[in-house]
Amino acid sequence: MGETKRVGVGLIGFGVVGEGVARLVRDNAATLTARIGVPIEVVRVAVRDLSRPRGVELDPALFTDDPFRVVDDPKVDIVVEVMGGEHPALELLLAALNKGKPVVTANKALLAIHGEQLYAAAEKNGARLRYEAAIGGVIPIVRTLTGAFAANRIDTVYGIVNGTCNYILTRMAEEGVGYDDALAEAQRLGYAEADPSVDVEGIDAAHKMAILAALAFDTPIDFSDVSVEGIGRISPVDIDMAAAFGYGIKLLGVARRHDDAAVEVRVHPAMVPLDMPIASVNGALNAIEVEGAEMGTNMLVGPGAGQGPTASAVLGDVADLARGLVDGAAVSPRPMNVPVASRVKLPPLPASKAEGRFYLRFTTSDRPGIMAALTKPLGDHGVSIASMIQTEHESDGEETAAVVMLTHRAGGEALAAALAEIDGVGILRSPTVVIRLVGDA
Amino acid sequence: MGETKRVGVGLIGFGVVGEGVARLVRDNAATLTARIGVPIEVVRVAVRDLSRPRGVELDPALFTDDPFRVVDDPKVDIVVEVMGGEHPALELLLAALNKGKPVVTANKALLAIHGEQLYAAAEKNGARLRYEAAIGGVIPIVRTLTGAFAANRIDTVYGIVNGTCNYILTRMAEEGVGYDDALAEAQRLGYAEADPSVDVEGIDAAHKMAILAALAFDTPIDFSDVSVEGIGRISPVDIDMAAAFGYGIKLLGVARRHDDAAVEVRVHPAMVPLDMPIASVNGALNAIEVEGAEMGTNMLVGPGAGQGPTASAVLGDVADLARGLVDGAAVSPRPMNVPVASRVKLPPLPASKAEGRFYLRFTTSDRPGIMAALTKPLGDHGVSIASMIQTEHESDGEETAAVVMLTHRAGGEALAAALAEIDGVGILRSPTVVIRLVGDA
Repeated sequence: MGETKRVGVGLIGFGVVGEGVARLVRDNAATLTARIGVPIEVVRVAVRDLSRPRGVELDPALFTDDPFRVVDDPKVDIVVEVMGGEHPALELLLAALNKGKPVVTANKALLAIHGEQLYAAAEKNGARLRYEAAIGGVIPIVRTLTGAFAANRIDTVYGIVNGTCNYILTRMAEEGVGYDDALAEAQRLGYAEADPSVDVEGIDAAHKMAILAALAFDTPIDFSDVSVEGIGRISPVDIDMAAAFGYGIKLLGVARRHDDAAVEVRVHPAMVPLDMPIASVNGALNAIEVEGAEMGTNMLVGPGAGQGPTASAVLGDVADLARGLVDGAAVSPRPMNVPVASRVKLPPLPASKAEGRFYLRFTTSDRPGIMAALTKPLGDHGVSIASMIQTEHESDGEETAAVVMLTHRAGGEALAAALAEIDGVGILRSPTVVIRLVGDA
Repeated sequence: MGETKRVGVGLIGFGVVGEGVARLVRDNAATLTARIGVPIEVVRVAVRDLSRPRGVELDPALFTDDPFRVVDDPKVDIVVEVMGGEHPALELLLAALNKGKPVVTANKALLAIHGEQLYAAAEKNGARLRYEAAIGGVIPIVRTLTGAFAANRIDTVYGIVNGTCNYILTRMAEEGVGYDDALAEAQRLGYAEADPSVDVEGIDAAHKMAILAALAFDTPIDFSDVSVEGIGRISPVDIDMAAAFGYGIKLLGVARRHDDAAVEVRVHPAMVPLDMPIASVNGALNAIEVEGAEMGTNMLVGPGAGQGPTASAVLGDVADLARGLVDGAAVSPRPMNVPVASRVKLPPLPASKAEGRFYLRFTTSDRPGIMAALTKPLGDHGVSIASMIQTEHESDGEETAAVVMLTHRAGGEALAAALAEIDGVGILRSPTVVIRLVGDA
């Protein structure tokens, strides 16, 4: 393609990210042209509703409400999918890849659930599939795992990969407000959607961790094997107690390979020692830590979402692919670090079975013998207590006590059995709050 | 090269990093082979002294004391230069690039001083030149600037890019020890060399910032235009005073583009607000922040040096190049983001002229009129004082006073003129300590 005069981008979806891509292509045209060698041009845009007004001026003739026309258009050299959702995004990307067209996507749900099908289609057709924008905005985690860290065997990837939850937890910690108020504020400021469930229930973070685990560990991941727990249970008292013990509470995604025996992918609130760098990643920021035996621990931090960062990530991938088209020197067609067929599926280790240290908060009636009723079942199941605080008694008709414990390292199943036994005694006034500690988690 | 059966690496230099590369090639062979498609093999090693015992077992027949034999060996597909120094590293890399052989180097002094020559040779010959390991160990800053961030116009890159200085300053802050003791400890632990001058005088950091500025701003940088100041002047009292004002002291590298009018590259101790994430990057860690209008601020953190991280970075580049050789799908031959000949040299803005806020520590004789003698020249030159502390009087034969000020935003030249005037009065007992504040610096 020595005569390439421009690289045509076809946008599928023209919401916040799609408009951002179009705007960046226009505003950074000089930079992009200098770096790629030829101009990037948006040559086709698929939208759901042709009549809706748009935030970026583009020739109306470019718009279509049939996204397959973007895929089929010969002027479209690179297909950019920013519509979101599983269908018809899956069918559109398969159609593009089957034509050998390079694809850039920001669609984490799609990759988490249908990634294997897409990766295989990309490889079979020698078509490039890039997805830096799907995880952490412009945080360069995908190309780092396939590039700078490629010579390392990675055993652990963890981090804060949902800015909505991090914003809510940060506000709760800084202002002492409850979950509902913090969520309402996040919605008002545009950090949370009207229906926040995909974010606050941890599903969005789980999508990202599933993609990262597959990439980092060279193994397919079934999304249904990912353990997910959201932040709705966290109350200000937990945040205060955590602080008293020297911890902050973050929604963490954790992916860990146990040699070649098992792989563990989980998303849940976690207590993070305040002196760990990730504990000071606040607000809507994301942070991803990667540990390898040789390379040590590296952390990448940045705005995990938003129009500018996500559009920048999409266009970083577009720039890589465009240079390939211009120079004839493309990046590897592999979407993963290794050929997809060469990978071995590792058995999943459910979070419920994973060892760790735990924060436990019991709310009980306040009467003699309570402490024994709580501690004996724990002891019987081999769960040993490292420290304990009994907090102020609340009067709620009747006296109640909050008892907070940090355990030593314990098995997840042993803990669950002890908690079920405690629950059976009938002294609990509300469900026990269990939060994993990290550091050695 | 569809019949590539292995990729041969020729090592020039076999010190800590070279041995680390050989060890990683051996220990991570399965991972590397899976990810590249064929095995990586060290096929030639140039050393200075053939008789010295080595930390990694390799066939003695591979060793030579003539590094040009590594470049010339047809079995060497990729030349890895980890010998350091300007000569003969420059001649060796030029020879390799002129043959069209891909080169990986960790040599920051070489790139900072002779980069233009090497970049031009790489481009002219279509030979790949990769240098991730030259800056911040395995922190993926080079490929991030050319990849994920490529669609952004970058205006500021700054960070902690010398682990030796960061270790020393961290120990001074945490333990209250003086510079000499902290340096001695760093030397004992291997964080500082026997002759630490390249590190503690800021030269190593300046090398890295020169490379980063050229890459981030698409402009050639003369190393002689980089302003450099080391950490030798920093005393525990400065660290204490900084903390009292809510700042930590870090050796920062700062590279800033002022539109297309000027470029500023400087390395100096800087006062960093304690709530900025980079303030908690301690010990031998490195951190690099990149700011772009669209993408926001991203930070990459990791161990900036050491055998494992540096060897990992070298092999990350080797893996990229090797995949290119195997797939016939190489990364762009450009060593920079844009063709070198297309760049415009921006005039340098010396640190002495750069505006900012400043910390000033005066040591004066303790007698009436001192405060006026200090503050009047500052006022006359338009340097306005934001806050001031007069600390304990030390008796050193005669009474002395330490007066510490934070200025409002001021021009570097105005400040220098005021300080020269103050110096002329003859009341100072020792040279005034000047440290830039960052945040809005």
